[in-house]
Amino acid sequence: MAKRISGKDVAADVKASVAAAVRTLPGQPTLAVVLVGDDPASEVYVRHKVTDTEEVGMRSIKKTLPATATQAEVEALISDLNQDDEVDGILLQLPLPNGLDANQAIECIDPDKDVDGLTEASAGRLVLGKTGLRPCTPTGSVILAKRALGDNLSGKNVVVIGRSILVGKPTALLFLAENCTVTIAHSKTKDLPGLCRTADILVPAVGRPQMVKGDWLKPGAVVIDVGINRIDAPERGEGKTRLVGDADFADCEPVAGHITPVPGGVGPMTRACLLQNTVKAACYRRGWTLPDGV
Amino acid sequence: MAKRISGKDVAADVKASVAAAVRTLPGQPTLAVVLVGDDPASEVYVRHKVTDTEEVGMRSIKKTLPATATQAEVEALISDLNQDDEVDGILLQLPLPNGLDANQAIECIDPDKDVDGLTEASAGRLVLGKTGLRPCTPTGSVILAKRALGDNLSGKNVVVIGRSILVGKPTALLFLAENCTVTIAHSKTKDLPGLCRTADILVPAVGRPQMVKGDWLKPGAVVIDVGINRIDAPERGEGKTRLVGDADFADCEPVAGHITPVPGGVGPMTRACLLQNTVKAACYRRGWTLPDGV
Repeated sequence: MAKRISGKDVAADVKASVAAAVRTLPGQPTLAVVLVGDDPASEVYVRHKVTDTEEVGMRSIKKTLPATATQAEVEALISDLNQDDEVDGILLQLPLPNGLDANQAIECIDPDKDVDGLTEASAGRLVLGKTGLRPCTPTGSVILAKRALGDNLSGKNVVVIGRSILVGKPTALLFLAENCTVTIAHSKTKDLPGLCRTADILVPAVGRPQMVKGDWLKPGAVVIDVGINRIDAPERGEGKTRLVGDADFADCEPVAGHITPVPGGVGPMTRACLLQNTVKAACYRRGWTLPDGV
Repeated sequence: MAKRISGKDVAADVKASVAAAVRTLPGQPTLAVVLVGDDPASEVYVRHKVTDTEEVGMRSIKKTLPATATQAEVEALISDLNQDDEVDGILLQLPLPNGLDANQAIECIDPDKDVDGLTEASAGRLVLGKTGLRPCTPTGSVILAKRALGDNLSGKNVVVIGRSILVGKPTALLFLAENCTVTIAHSKTKDLPGLCRTADILVPAVGRPQMVKGDWLKPGAVVIDVGINRIDAPERGEGKTRLVGDADFADCEPVAGHITPVPGGVGPMTRACLLQNTVKAACYRRGWTLPDGV
């Protein structure tokens, strides 16, 4: 029976490490969060990020623009934050209201302050193996795999299912940087179950509820489930739903060595890694030594 | 017995397509080549690039700086070329003389003119699947694989051996963009021969002479050999050397379906793809429609 890797617990550890690191820094890192419009879900996410930031001893700035803001206004705000020497990280809450070009706005963020790791330069630095800010969900996935197998992942076979720019591709590149042998699979892959059975670490990230079955796994494999899917749950009552991952948890649990639950797996790590990135951004930009544990 | 894929012939076809494309354009694309110092090999490479460019009907500009040039002088020259609206592509011939920082100089190149595809932004655009200029050797490798298997590579298993920023990683990303299932292997990979036997397309790119043996191949596999290694060739006389790839050609030829020779395989493609990139850079930047065949 697989051990569950609690993303909640690991995220709490990461948060504690960040808080400890922040106390050793010569100054206080600052994260600026930009919210455009009044999407209720986005408001909740932004509130969480502000609270998280302050809880670990960093400063947070929240900037809001109305849903009627123009592209130029969004970009001007980002440009101000780029130039503000007090600001270490800039997070543009997505999605933007209709009519605004998110990609173009993201590209305005100074890559040195790009704590979401979404700009072209950040993606390029990842490929080129340069110092830079890596996307949060992929970083969290690697941390969870290390919690299962230890810090040395060298030589492990990793299969990432999905090649999205937000998760699949950066996750593959991050495991590659850990000296894993990495395969990127997707909808055109032939014999996906057979390929998955070669994986020491399997990372489904496609958004297909409960796709990965127990007989897709090498016994003892680590499953880092990035999928978050809402499905009907009539057993909970009429019209009720629940969250499930891309792995069929009940079916995989007897075969896997370690598995992350959904919810409570990769999800909480994304928030924690944003804090880590803010510390990194501050250290790189201000020439501070990066503290241990970050 | 494998069919040999002649990089020379395919490169000639690419060059002919570029020449045909250039004739249909509303203006003449211009490639600027920057040579710093007087390394004889670099001078030869630059001469080839100038000749190639003019042969396909494009304009070439050669800019030279002495070996004593400072970093600031190199960057100022690049900056001038960035601002010169007549210049579509900028190629900085590498290596630079000792004491100059090549990475820093490359980052000065406007990504829209980065015909070598070496800047952070170009690497990022590749990961993010955005329009941009891709590195030449990886692009040439994909073209050669298509020559063997046809334009539709969807679902093919590709194993890239090597994870360099110049070849391994961009090659993997380009085959991924062709809907291949891609594995990146390297020195830490376990059972490399066994992994290679899963490949429909094998791309060794590590710089280890004749490492890949015939029994590493699935019968009928396509071998795109990116390695170029100089080894002793006493059979040619005392002190003589010859070029070999990362694949043991004689051993692989009876098993492979298609194989590229070294020399005369991937090598000539790199030069041809530079021309293709110059046309692309001109079209993207000037808002021209990209002609067919480029």
